Amino acid sequence: MDMSSRKPIKFGAIIHGVGGNISGWRHPEVPADASVSLDFYKRQAATAEKGKFDLVFIADGLYINEKSIPHFLNRFEPITILSALASVTSKIGLVGTLSSSYSEPFNVARQFGSLDHISGGRAGWNVVTSPLEGSAGNFGRDHHPTHDERYEIAEEYLEVVRGLWDSWEDDAFVRDKASGVFFDPSKLHRLDHKGKHFSVTGPLNISRSSQGHPVIFQAGSSESGKNLAAKEADAVFTGHENIEEAKAFYKDVKERTAAAGRSVDDIVILPGIGPIIGKTEEEAERKYEELAALVSIENALNYLGRFFEHHDFSQYPLDEPFPELGDLGSNSFRSGTDKIKKTAKEKGLTLRQVALQSATPRTPFIGTPERIANLIQQWHEEEAADGFIVHTHIPSGLEDFVELVVPILQQRGLYREDYESSTLRGNLGLPIPENRYAKQAVEVEQA
Amino acid sequence: MDMSSRKPIKFGAIIHGVGGNISGWRHPEVPADASVSLDFYKRQAATAEKGKFDLVFIADGLYINEKSIPHFLNRFEPITILSALASVTSKIGLVGTLSSSYSEPFNVARQFGSLDHISGGRAGWNVVTSPLEGSAGNFGRDHHPTHDERYEIAEEYLEVVRGLWDSWEDDAFVRDKASGVFFDPSKLHRLDHKGKHFSVTGPLNISRSSQGHPVIFQAGSSESGKNLAAKEADAVFTGHENIEEAKAFYKDVKERTAAAGRSVDDIVILPGIGPIIGKTEEEAERKYEELAALVSIENALNYLGRFFEHHDFSQYPLDEPFPELGDLGSNSFRSGTDKIKKTAKEKGLTLRQVALQSATPRTPFIGTPERIANLIQQWHEEEAADGFIVHTHIPSGLEDFVELVVPILQQRGLYREDYESSTLRGNLGLPIPENRYAKQAVEVEQA
Repeated sequence: MDMSSRKPIKFGAIIHGVGGNISGWRHPEVPADASVSLDFYKRQAATAEKGKFDLVFIADGLYINEKSIPHFLNRFEPITILSALASVTSKIGLVGTLSSSYSEPFNVARQFGSLDHISGGRAGWNVVTSPLEGSAGNFGRDHHPTHDERYEIAEEYLEVVRGLWDSWEDDAFVRDKASGVFFDPSKLHRLDHKGKHFSVTGPLNISRSSQGHPVIFQAGSSESGKNLAAKEADAVFTGHENIEEAKAFYKDVKERTAAAGRSVDDIVILPGIGPIIGKTEEEAERKYEELAALVSIENALNYLGRFFEHHDFSQYPLDEPFPELGDLGSNSFRSGTDKIKKTAKEKGLTLRQVALQSATPRTPFIGTPERIANLIQQWHEEEAADGFIVHTHIPSGLEDFVELVVPILQQRGLYREDYESSTLRGNLGLPIPENRYAKQAVEVEQA
Repeated sequence: MDMSSRKPIKFGAIIHGVGGNISGWRHPEVPADASVSLDFYKRQAATAEKGKFDLVFIADGLYINEKSIPHFLNRFEPITILSALASVTSKIGLVGTLSSSYSEPFNVARQFGSLDHISGGRAGWNVVTSPLEGSAGNFGRDHHPTHDERYEIAEEYLEVVRGLWDSWEDDAFVRDKASGVFFDPSKLHRLDHKGKHFSVTGPLNISRSSQGHPVIFQAGSSESGKNLAAKEADAVFTGHENIEEAKAFYKDVKERTAAAGRSVDDIVILPGIGPIIGKTEEEAERKYEELAALVSIENALNYLGRFFEHHDFSQYPLDEPFPELGDLGSNSFRSGTDKIKKTAKEKGLTLRQVALQSATPRTPFIGTPERIANLIQQWHEEEAADGFIVHTHIPSGLEDFVELVVPILQQRGLYREDYESSTLRGNLGLPIPENRYAKQAVEVEQA
């Protein structure tokens, strides 16, 4: 790809209460009730918007048990907190996770459509298939669909939701007070979808926003996840331990996107990074050690267990090689669990090492602002990323990033001085999807 | 009941874009895109909060077709707009309609629980069973459940949602940074509900707010609706043409509530009123005529048809007696359609008269501020109402009510000068529901 045409770096901020680290809530600086504190979320969103971030990101899950990490036990539901933030922010995108396995497409299309209007075109939906088996029990299901089934459902689900979003052509609402004509009936369309998993007539009772459709995020890195992203996603939220892995993923997804008949510029790839910033390398190192010291081995085992369908790792000796787990984890966070098993085997890690590394990852993004800016620049230039989803472990981490790292990238001309657009698509440099019916009408006319 | 113990009058405001009247969007004062304008909703909520209203109310529906009234075609979804208003208001309650026929209790419990936290205990849920048959098609169902089935589902649904809301006892979250204990596992409860319609394990991943549970509204006035209200509701949103009817309904629901073993003070009955206020009676009359003149007979017939499963009334002669409709309408808005048929018969009304009266009702609440304050006082004193849900036809209607009617009621000592509480339950004078598990524990201890 031609470097000169690269879009500037994009940034998202995962904002969550006490969830940046499994034991982060114990840090002296963290308000321990942050995951249900509107003020906390407002402050984090304001900081990200001050830093001209493209978006804030709200993660989610549909199943907890007593071993879940503290943040997951008691936290805001994404649609509600994003809507609350919509009215106290003005430019930043508002992206949240919502499961396509345990919800109704008509309701979800409406809620994201409504959020998109409320925010003036700043909504994004991270389509997840729900990795946790226990989710089924909260929705009256006998079993959690298999990994492949979940992705098959997700693809049809997205087809339905996109169709509903197009119910009204953009010029459908005439609103002529004199004649009493509110809308043009020829620009209202019923979907009448009948598929394997869904049957939805429509039309939807909300129109498209100024960005056409909310931005579609995809966060699965399995084969099914990458294929869905290539076909359907505007943005991919991923995670990598090093630049080589990130570059391979980036190339892979861009190639799959091209193969699906789309422009590689129409999908942005955003690895997650958890920067720990110090004025000196030593200060950053000290901050990392402080965080790591908060995690007990019991908590680390619980945290690890969650990725493997809440497997009980306390049954194994801590300082012997990571146990053989067979297929365990392949129907939940498959790409993550595959990677954990592979890395443990290759490096000959013990269970203790794997658990502690999972709970407080030692990433390259620990150091001075210059070091972190350099890494960001390198990942961007070498096509490991179009941008990054920044998750910070303590509240001041996001402030440090905005105050110290962002100005360096701005000085280097790699990052915006101000928002280019009022919509999330506009800022991410993504096209507005054409209304399917308006497009058909044009095609018929031209035929 | 002892008059001296009556709670002060309660007020809610239905805020909606252009929906106060079927043709209200044509009024010169109305922004025709108000139903998708955040600014419009913010202004209306601010006006209601200035008037110390207990709550704003967002109505909803899950099915539209080309004959639906303009406001319904393109409007905000309740959870999203209420959440957006939560962060720009501070005292007023936030109540919205959500269907128990076409949603998952786990998702709805979470969203209202989350809104309740975001707003600091100001959320309310108007539980509706979805009157419109066409809704089924948007949710992959072969048929719309019958009226009785829908209420049976709603009752079990509420049982599940209340159980999920109690997943965490109020003192479950210890959050002791020193010891690393985030919560007390003995205060976390799984619901494990297995019923006819739902099977939900829980626990819910959000705790109770300061008001315990969101306030439960019920708006059906059929037998099933009144029975559900008596058993489960904190508040009833109803509608009556005159004080006699309202008094009979009030007495009926309070008696059913007592029969269900509850205190009659634990349910508030709030008839809807659509005041049209003028400085003189003539001005008020002129305002009514202006509104009525905006409604074409075609629109009025469409509006009427919607209550009867989108029946096409244009097939009948306009100036002959209202047609015989048999059972039509009994599976949708049953109490409303029964009343229309009965009134038409008793008064010998023509189709034209019924349609125009439905579209622009001539209620007693048209007149000077004094006249309207007098009626409100009378309805309250004579136990026709504990308060009112005010829906205004044009934006200045709500301002007029707050500026002109509210001060009269305040001077008479019938209405608050300021909010008594920070929660909706507190302002409505309703008790905080005990956590079912904490209650059980106390009962076991005392046994």
